Amino acid sequence: MAPPLPGYSSHFGLDNIPFGIASSDLHPAPVCATRFKDSVIFLDKLDNFLEGIQDLRQDVLAYSMLNAFAALPNATHRAVRERLQSVIREDEELQSLPTGTVEPIGAVTMHLPVGTGDFTDMSCSTHHAQNASEAMTGKRSLPPAFLHMPIGYAGRCSSLDISGTPVERPLGQYWTGKPGESDVVFGPCKKMDYELELAAVIGKPLQRKQRLLASQAEEHIFGYVLLNDWSARDIQGFEMIPLGPLNGKNAGTTLSPWVVTTDALNAYRTASPPRTQKVMPYLADSGNAALDIKLEVRVSSPNTTTEREFTCHSNSSWMYWTLAQCVAHQAIGGCGLRTGDLIATGTVSGAESNEHGCLMEYMKQGKQPPRGYLEDGETVILSGYCGEGVGFGECVATLTPARDLES
Amino acid sequence: MAPPLPGYSSHFGLDNIPFGIASSDLHPAPVCATRFKDSVIFLDKLDNFLEGIQDLRQDVLAYSMLNAFAALPNATHRAVRERLQSVIREDEELQSLPTGTVEPIGAVTMHLPVGTGDFTDMSCSTHHAQNASEAMTGKRSLPPAFLHMPIGYAGRCSSLDISGTPVERPLGQYWTGKPGESDVVFGPCKKMDYELELAAVIGKPLQRKQRLLASQAEEHIFGYVLLNDWSARDIQGFEMIPLGPLNGKNAGTTLSPWVVTTDALNAYRTASPPRTQKVMPYLADSGNAALDIKLEVRVSSPNTTTEREFTCHSNSSWMYWTLAQCVAHQAIGGCGLRTGDLIATGTVSGAESNEHGCLMEYMKQGKQPPRGYLEDGETVILSGYCGEGVGFGECVATLTPARDLES
Repeated sequence: MAPPLPGYSSHFGLDNIPFGIASSDLHPAPVCATRFKDSVIFLDKLDNFLEGIQDLRQDVLAYSMLNAFAALPNATHRAVRERLQSVIREDEELQSLPTGTVEPIGAVTMHLPVGTGDFTDMSCSTHHAQNASEAMTGKRSLPPAFLHMPIGYAGRCSSLDISGTPVERPLGQYWTGKPGESDVVFGPCKKMDYELELAAVIGKPLQRKQRLLASQAEEHIFGYVLLNDWSARDIQGFEMIPLGPLNGKNAGTTLSPWVVTTDALNAYRTASPPRTQKVMPYLADSGNAALDIKLEVRVSSPNTTTEREFTCHSNSSWMYWTLAQCVAHQAIGGCGLRTGDLIATGTVSGAESNEHGCLMEYMKQGKQPPRGYLEDGETVILSGYCGEGVGFGECVATLTPARDLES
Repeated sequence: MAPPLPGYSSHFGLDNIPFGIASSDLHPAPVCATRFKDSVIFLDKLDNFLEGIQDLRQDVLAYSMLNAFAALPNATHRAVRERLQSVIREDEELQSLPTGTVEPIGAVTMHLPVGTGDFTDMSCSTHHAQNASEAMTGKRSLPPAFLHMPIGYAGRCSSLDISGTPVERPLGQYWTGKPGESDVVFGPCKKMDYELELAAVIGKPLQRKQRLLASQAEEHIFGYVLLNDWSARDIQGFEMIPLGPLNGKNAGTTLSPWVVTTDALNAYRTASPPRTQKVMPYLADSGNAALDIKLEVRVSSPNTTTEREFTCHSNSSWMYWTLAQCVAHQAIGGCGLRTGDLIATGTVSGAESNEHGCLMEYMKQGKQPPRGYLEDGETVILSGYCGEGVGFGECVATLTPARDLES
């Protein structure tokens, strides 16, 4: 059993310096912020410290979304991050920052980091695709296009939620038993699941009809967040032939609050798994483009006892496709990319039985799963961590009970 | 052969009074407008005529999107429309309107009517679903959930285009021959298709977690537009198992410019086809909820001769599901609805061979299609018409050639 990921202070050290949107009693209007250890630094009043950075207009840090800042070149984000690092390096107690710009994390409310015009969820993990196939059909097969390109579906933007927002068990239609052979009912989902995912947040936009090679795609990635793609498996299973999931994925999609930049993650590059199929030129990468992020899910029950906490471990470097490849593939048909767009990995799983990134993967036919689908009141906690000072913190949400149609 | 739909003046009579976003040399900033016959009336300077209408703040008519106006209660849209009708009824030459508020349609540029946060495309036509199945698999079957609820997929918002915008033949990956048994290549789409659709534009928003019955869903529909869901059939066919279409639908989605209100269409209600399966209570409707809109596609070749123009006829009342049912189904999982959201019907087809709403339906195995997929330079023109004075005008786009990856 892998050890639990370290605590928050260790996720947000000097080598991280992520970006998010925060408010507090002293700062009631949400603005851009960063985090160092357990302190949140509001960035809208740091003019003196951030002077002279190319392309940075200070007003972009005073908005309630990161979009205007994220749209700037990554060189500008880098310069802001390095400036903040040099200030903090000199003064770890943050005493030199203007009064009122620093608050403890406990006093702060985090908000959705960006406004998102399009959200795509891809399928990058061979292990997930094979486990899901085995659970659904009894056969460990991959989708026909899986080894050629990241396949995916467009998700719902109106149900993106910041970490901490409860997700309500949805109503929908589904088969009561074997697909195609049992009754169809309308009622509360009985197979509520989570999905452990990582998502790229688009920064610099890409014009319509412009193409992008995977090797250049990170220029358009502002940073990364954890994402829980809550999935109503019974509703999804009924609706998805042949147009893919819709309402089964719409109850809520939870994002972690801090956007961790590519610069912070660059020290954790590693190789992707060997390609078993020739990769088309537009998807070719350097071979060392994967990110080594340790990922974890914990499911915590209302009456928490150690026994009832369920854990799984995974790693983003185990995926067959990187998010840079996903971004390039998304753009190849000419749709462009807009700042704030989210492109996610799909469930990130490993080869071992304690490395399944969602509960459905445990439901293999003829095998005894370690637990069932989610119960009302359970809390799902995703976490991601690279190494000393660089992590994502947590992406948390609690499942609340279904309400009647009339309520 | 059905006669061609009548000309534009007959689409935009006194019983229509649709809403759109227009600009011109005299009105360089796009604002809200309506259309009567071949005149466009700019609504931002009509304060005197629109005084005293409940909930109407005049500034919402001066924005470059209809969203703020659309978000108002339908009673407000109704009052504005009726006020305009009474002004025009008195003065069909529009002489009494302030100088500069009226321009001929030829002097005006139309823009996307709304900003769209989520776009869902449903599958409402039994004939389309069966024809597509026969073309793909040789069997006339329906998707497993088809008779229980409208199934659908989320589409790409960044590639929504106003009528008149060219669509470029996309690049992508696809099988060169029989699915699963031929080589996979990357290159220009060879099976470019259109889809004849109608879409509901959401007006009054619905909060997250709130439900909506189909019988009440029209309260949240601001109006309707024609929609061409351009489809790269080879790219779509390769990618869509099991997550549905993505890049195959992302090159462009064309909208007609004028949002026709439910009030204008109410005179054209008719019965939906008989339900062959019990409808769940949240999807139940009055039985007379379908809209009788004659729909037409024309494909016009660059060197137009009558022989080379290809035409198909359809009708929105032939669909198994209405857009009100689609809207209710979209919301049932708790995702909410935002003003400007689009919910479309999928291809609207009829039972006869000249009533196929897309070219794929003609490609039935073992049969000789009347023509192949779209060629570069061809123009696809959708049109919709109810009766004297009430129509949608046209939704037009020309297919331009693919460009190399590097260009």
